[in-house]
Amino acid sequence: MTYDTLYEQIKIKKTCLCVGLDTDLSKIPVHIAAMPHPIFEFNRRIIEATAPYCVAYKLNTAFYEAEGVEGWEDLEKTVKYIKEKYPEIFIIADAKRGDIGNTAVQYAKAFFTKMDFDAVTLSPYMGFDTIKPFLKYKDKWVIILALTSNKSADQFETLQTIIGNAGSSANALARHHVPLYEKVIRESINSTEEYLNIDGTDPLDTSMNHIMFVVGATKQEKLSEIRKYCPNHFLLVPGVGAQGGSLDSVLKYGRNSKVGLLINSSRGIIYASTGKDFTEKAAEAASKFRM
Amino acid sequence: MTYDTLYEQIKIKKTCLCVGLDTDLSKIPVHIAAMPHPIFEFNRRIIEATAPYCVAYKLNTAFYEAEGVEGWEDLEKTVKYIKEKYPEIFIIADAKRGDIGNTAVQYAKAFFTKMDFDAVTLSPYMGFDTIKPFLKYKDKWVIILALTSNKSADQFETLQTIIGNAGSSANALARHHVPLYEKVIRESINSTEEYLNIDGTDPLDTSMNHIMFVVGATKQEKLSEIRKYCPNHFLLVPGVGAQGGSLDSVLKYGRNSKVGLLINSSRGIIYASTGKDFTEKAAEAASKFRM
Repeated sequence: MTYDTLYEQIKIKKTCLCVGLDTDLSKIPVHIAAMPHPIFEFNRRIIEATAPYCVAYKLNTAFYEAEGVEGWEDLEKTVKYIKEKYPEIFIIADAKRGDIGNTAVQYAKAFFTKMDFDAVTLSPYMGFDTIKPFLKYKDKWVIILALTSNKSADQFETLQTIIGNAGSSANALARHHVPLYEKVIRESINSTEEYLNIDGTDPLDTSMNHIMFVVGATKQEKLSEIRKYCPNHFLLVPGVGAQGGSLDSVLKYGRNSKVGLLINSSRGIIYASTGKDFTEKAAEAASKFRM
Repeated sequence: MTYDTLYEQIKIKKTCLCVGLDTDLSKIPVHIAAMPHPIFEFNRRIIEATAPYCVAYKLNTAFYEAEGVEGWEDLEKTVKYIKEKYPEIFIIADAKRGDIGNTAVQYAKAFFTKMDFDAVTLSPYMGFDTIKPFLKYKDKWVIILALTSNKSADQFETLQTIIGNAGSSANALARHHVPLYEKVIRESINSTEEYLNIDGTDPLDTSMNHIMFVVGATKQEKLSEIRKYCPNHFLLVPGVGAQGGSLDSVLKYGRNSKVGLLINSSRGIIYASTGKDFTEKAAEAASKFRM
């Protein structure tokens, strides 16, 4: 899916909601939990109920891996179901992988060939080697962790890093440092542009059409700052709802001229009710994200 | 498995070799590839041949995920096979996961409960939140990426980060920065010690018995530097062989009084031959790591 196709969907549906399918067997309604393949059965019902109110689904792989082989089957079945029934909806593997060379090639195969995800989330720690193999796939995306919404995000992500040759004075040094998440965003854009320019002549081969960044909704004050050096790229914003971020603030500080946001909500939608009315309540919760 | 049990095995077998089971269907002998569950069949034969010459196996999850449900089955079967036949061997899920709170709980369930891995590799980008849920498991380990062996490791891992209140002079600033990987090692040890001290009174509850760090063999010159502030912890060292690191240098600069190293080799052992003699050649390659 291209940037503009995704933007079209946002305009048509008047929302940039991404529903997080973090499906936990211990939290789904008991009548569904008793069925064969309960995770898929739950997902299918949530998807049918929420598809009119969202432009993306995000499947957190941990919840599927925790159920072993059957969990992985349900992951595959869910992706296949969405692709067949709602091909206009963007599907994210929230896998937070991050490995190099021949290993990254295998992860790309897992998520883009074996399964038909549109995007995968990656951790940038090991650098651009972890991203490159995914860029070979046309119409597929990589979503890079930048500034996350958790408590210990401040341990490394916001550390000030010294860049370039800072010279000898304290003032010069002070001007030459940026937080790690800013460095990650800038470097990832630069490396991706450089790589795509060498490889392709396709006008869609720009970093805007291949990479997004994760910025937590609990860091609203940082969103407008990030928009200064990252005005065009999509940002995937988790943390609205259960984690305390507000939809209005994210839109106010994070949106660009083509919206440029996918705002994720997981628990607040899929567990809006644990009774028989869970689909209606999920639809109702999802509809509140209309812009 | 405790630190001392692992050290005992190293003394008994006179090696700190970890064999990397990065099993790629396109690289295994054709007569194995034609069998049902070829990945497991290949692994089983490699394990039988190399078990006398190694103390650990590392399964890179990407190679299993790339084969979908069957790959995940082969991952589970391989772990079960090693645990049953060679319970003294340490098994690492090279998963490089890294997620928070309720998601990390699910990953811990996947690798430590559903499967019986002894350790899982994690990316530290999001901070200690990603590590904490794994520490609740007695006798299980987390192996944290610190300084990796790939080319783009220099993009973020070696960035100088400013720590503490540096004061106003250039000299003060210069004394108060360390590379990101050093910060990761120091902070991970501190956070783990703090967490274990609150939670438990078990004398085995020290960070030494729960966390290791990944340091690439291609960064030999950094190993002795890292040993200054991380003298006791195990280091998992990939990159010997195919990636160019030397066994002797890693031992020279990285070993401590209890060895404190797991040296990984993957392709150099499991693909030592692609013919019918692949098990003998794998055993031969593995035996060269004897100390």
